[in-house]
Amino acid sequence: MTKNSALETGEAIQAKPLVEIDPAKCVACGQCVSVCPPHSIIRQEGKTPPKFADNGWCLRCGHCVSVCPTGALSHIEMAPENIRAIDPAWTPEMIEMFLRSKRSVRHFSDKPVARETLEKLLEVAAQAPSDANQQDRSFMVLTDRALIDGYEAAVIKHFRDTHDQLLASGVDPMFWKLLYIRPLLAKYDAGEHPIFRGAPSVVCAYARKDNNFGWYNCAIAMDYLMLMAHSMGVESCIVGFSFNPSEIGHKFLGLSDKYQLHSVVALGYPKYRFRRTVQRRPADVIWRS
Amino acid sequence: MTKNSALETGEAIQAKPLVEIDPAKCVACGQCVSVCPPHSIIRQEGKTPPKFADNGWCLRCGHCVSVCPTGALSHIEMAPENIRAIDPAWTPEMIEMFLRSKRSVRHFSDKPVARETLEKLLEVAAQAPSDANQQDRSFMVLTDRALIDGYEAAVIKHFRDTHDQLLASGVDPMFWKLLYIRPLLAKYDAGEHPIFRGAPSVVCAYARKDNNFGWYNCAIAMDYLMLMAHSMGVESCIVGFSFNPSEIGHKFLGLSDKYQLHSVVALGYPKYRFRRTVQRRPADVIWRS
Repeated sequence: MTKNSALETGEAIQAKPLVEIDPAKCVACGQCVSVCPPHSIIRQEGKTPPKFADNGWCLRCGHCVSVCPTGALSHIEMAPENIRAIDPAWTPEMIEMFLRSKRSVRHFSDKPVARETLEKLLEVAAQAPSDANQQDRSFMVLTDRALIDGYEAAVIKHFRDTHDQLLASGVDPMFWKLLYIRPLLAKYDAGEHPIFRGAPSVVCAYARKDNNFGWYNCAIAMDYLMLMAHSMGVESCIVGFSFNPSEIGHKFLGLSDKYQLHSVVALGYPKYRFRRTVQRRPADVIWRS
Repeated sequence: MTKNSALETGEAIQAKPLVEIDPAKCVACGQCVSVCPPHSIIRQEGKTPPKFADNGWCLRCGHCVSVCPTGALSHIEMAPENIRAIDPAWTPEMIEMFLRSKRSVRHFSDKPVARETLEKLLEVAAQAPSDANQQDRSFMVLTDRALIDGYEAAVIKHFRDTHDQLLASGVDPMFWKLLYIRPLLAKYDAGEHPIFRGAPSVVCAYARKDNNFGWYNCAIAMDYLMLMAHSMGVESCIVGFSFNPSEIGHKFLGLSDKYQLHSVVALGYPKYRFRRTVQRRPADVIWRS
């Protein structure tokens, strides 16, 4: 569980020039100078290529490498084979259909998700934005049936205890928690898997507890993971019960106190095929213009 | 600011059959029975179509309408013209390139984002998953320059106060907050817009404060919004400073105490074009199989 907090360790502040500029290719357009978030690329006199500031620090965001019209920039931590030309083959209509067609899937086939597929999903999840590009979000992947069942049992125990405590204290049984919890417990007792829905794999995301943006980093990375999965025919469902409250999952997964669990997703091949987009309520919007 | 909490109001528990089944089209395959999360569609004897349970309740998720192979189901709250056949025109490679190519944009052109474009983004944001499909996330859209500048001034004031307090209390200036805050204040004082980056529009998302999943609903909906924007050439940046901590924005936007602000995004047409994907660190993963 190594973490990479450049800002935390002070590693972010360093004099090592991480960005290299090929003077033969540079046309001194200044776009890299403009986009660098910490202003570490400095314009030089006349048509001379810019330079990486002696005391500059680097977010490793790669904006400079991405924006350069002539490919004159490289980043010493990024292999050239991982820098690819952006080829926008999508249309807005296609993306809208893609986003609308992703449904929360709760019925999975027995087919396991291959390790290389999961690796691809995690690779793409790691491309999601994060605060100051610190990429503070870690993943735990469960593909063992007994382990997933054990997690489910721990969640069920928590809700059974909550149910019993609420009842004992005389809470109105229409209270939504009871409304939800009762069918959950009944299904579990009947041998079903109402938490992870029999999914063959579960991905958990957590971040440093002292990072007040960790929840956001995890939620977006998991969204990228689920969207990439959807594109590959692997479907998913955010399992709110398993990490909200986070203590049950945290304890079951054996996370250290340094971390907080923020998202858990069940993943697998869908048992049923969804054929149509459906309708949501219109967004609740206040316009201030 | 009307909210739609079906579970909160008890409206979710109702006898009105929201789902209609056309017996002439139904082939009694039972897929709608299987996918209905609250098990409100009930199988009948033999080849008879299933029926919506007399005491059934409905998440309005539309799974039944989406899954039906013959189009026999309709939902009284969903107009048929909003139910569209899913046409998966994407490939995993295209979606991966799409996700990798979205960058956090901090330089916007002066071109405003048209109202109909923003409406489309919000329409797609409203399709993102939410807890129990309650869709508890509301939006405020700012397109007024003075209003955005006022929000920026409020954020800057907060950080200037924080900076001064930290300094006065003798905090090490290498502390990351100071590291970030100083350049921010210096840029602002030099006439720049280091918070909203001169973006012509800002979208804020908030949820009921008593919803312990509101943060997640907002983060994903905003991710859908940003991805849809990216597909249309409108770029974005999550403005962490403006809602983390949430009090400054909450107060400036005039939200009631019922709500909590969870996400704020700057939106506009990009000034510079990003041409290449870049490399992130590999995902930090623990495999348990």
